[in-house]
Amino acid sequence: MEKFELTILGCGSALPTTRHFATSQVINLRDKLYMIDCGEGAQLQLRRSHLKCSRLNRIFISHLHGDHCFGLIGLISTFNLLGRTATLHVHAPEKFGPQLRDQLDFFCKGMDFSVEFHPIDTTRHALIYEDRSLSVYSIPLRHRIECSGFLFKEKATRPHIRRDMIDFYRIPISEINNIKNGKDWMTEEGTLVPHSMLTTPSAPPRTYAYCSDTCYLPELAALVQDVDLLFHEATFLHQDLKRAQETFHTTALQAATLARDSHAKKLCIGHFSARYEDEQPLLEEACSVFPQTILAKENLLIPI
Amino acid sequence: MEKFELTILGCGSALPTTRHFATSQVINLRDKLYMIDCGEGAQLQLRRSHLKCSRLNRIFISHLHGDHCFGLIGLISTFNLLGRTATLHVHAPEKFGPQLRDQLDFFCKGMDFSVEFHPIDTTRHALIYEDRSLSVYSIPLRHRIECSGFLFKEKATRPHIRRDMIDFYRIPISEINNIKNGKDWMTEEGTLVPHSMLTTPSAPPRTYAYCSDTCYLPELAALVQDVDLLFHEATFLHQDLKRAQETFHTTALQAATLARDSHAKKLCIGHFSARYEDEQPLLEEACSVFPQTILAKENLLIPI
Repeated sequence: MEKFELTILGCGSALPTTRHFATSQVINLRDKLYMIDCGEGAQLQLRRSHLKCSRLNRIFISHLHGDHCFGLIGLISTFNLLGRTATLHVHAPEKFGPQLRDQLDFFCKGMDFSVEFHPIDTTRHALIYEDRSLSVYSIPLRHRIECSGFLFKEKATRPHIRRDMIDFYRIPISEINNIKNGKDWMTEEGTLVPHSMLTTPSAPPRTYAYCSDTCYLPELAALVQDVDLLFHEATFLHQDLKRAQETFHTTALQAATLARDSHAKKLCIGHFSARYEDEQPLLEEACSVFPQTILAKENLLIPI
Repeated sequence: MEKFELTILGCGSALPTTRHFATSQVINLRDKLYMIDCGEGAQLQLRRSHLKCSRLNRIFISHLHGDHCFGLIGLISTFNLLGRTATLHVHAPEKFGPQLRDQLDFFCKGMDFSVEFHPIDTTRHALIYEDRSLSVYSIPLRHRIECSGFLFKEKATRPHIRRDMIDFYRIPISEINNIKNGKDWMTEEGTLVPHSMLTTPSAPPRTYAYCSDTCYLPELAALVQDVDLLFHEATFLHQDLKRAQETFHTTALQAATLARDSHAKKLCIGHFSARYEDEQPLLEEACSVFPQTILAKENLLIPI
């Protein structure tokens, strides 16, 4: 199966603690990297992760609270020092565009690469990016300021060739690419061998959803249905529901309920409030509703 | 002796490594804190240091390269989350003023405390701040952009009362404060006892100089003469002198030469280039000229 992994660079919330970095994570899909959020220290954590900066061309910022974006200017400066030339694409809520431009003009004059800004409409569930292997959709979240989650959908890879069938029908190598692309095979005797007999289907495309920061939104279940991995913020324990509601955050119980209702295969909770020195109770609370839950942790790598 | 300490929060240079944080340090003088530079991650390191944020009211930024100031906005945001109400004073090269204001307006609307900006004239050696216990002077440095070092001069404390002399002359307690402040004592017989006989001098005021980033400037020796502790950047080994000159940085040998020529009591070198995995050669090079040299290191506390 081709690589599709999530690396947690930071999973704390707004108040820094000695246990967590601010929010940032990296998707590695077939050795192309996509960053989600870029809190302070993200570049340090990226360096520690041994992920290759040169493979990172696209950053998605959910919202403009500092713990999700203060690391961006430092990351960009460092990319410049490292001699980057490839364009870096930044997707973020619209009003970040001019602010980022100001910072770049002030701190990063004469860079050898461009930063291209792509505004996200945080009110819509829409395709915001795609390439050969991936589609990324925005997920409208509800927080104190405009905020978008992200749904990463792997594109299907071509089916695998069945060597035994190719040999049996003596199909020339020059035809294999066509068969992978869906062409059938006509024998000399005029029998049609459908390409499905000549191949085995590739693994079904995988999906990853990132939902942070947001209050509990039951209607998200439809948007993230059947995801292989759901990352959902679980800033609070359910005993602190009132505080969660006031600050437009989610409790571990609610995150797990959403995972259950969306039939997610796995849930990773993060964005932990600084008030909890021990996060085990958050995990236990979530597992009581959705047992396939794990706690986010710095430098954790999760295969999707 | 009253507290006068330096804590290193970060001592790396522009390129982040897994060994160092970007530049930031804190002076603790009689439990009032003064931060010098605020690279990315400074707030995290501050939290780790257990220095009390509430005692930090003044930040001095040497220059506007990201590794010396990208941590400021995060630090300010966090102070706000922590409920700060006291004004925070930021001293920095003049053009940082509007940039900082923009960032505050964008990211920190409705804060419960003010940030007051004080421009530094980086071309002059001048008093830029003083309070009851301290004077801070700018030190003109030479870097790729305008840059100022800082000289922290403790103010003299009042002399200590000689209990034996007070008892001998039967001086009433109500007079002690006056004597500490320099008043002499007249005995009943009309003999004048000079206050210097009634007191012992307090410890001589101590000084700390911070010089980073800069090329080697021999003329600094006069400005930082006899400092108790000199922090000087030593980005490179002397074998990389050419690179040091190109980038307006200093070698360990040069930093030590300045320490020797200024008759500093102690030298702390830092701002190490990412190229040196082992910093021992930097230390050895400096010690060959000025043996009272130490290497900066994260979380190192140096009494002054």
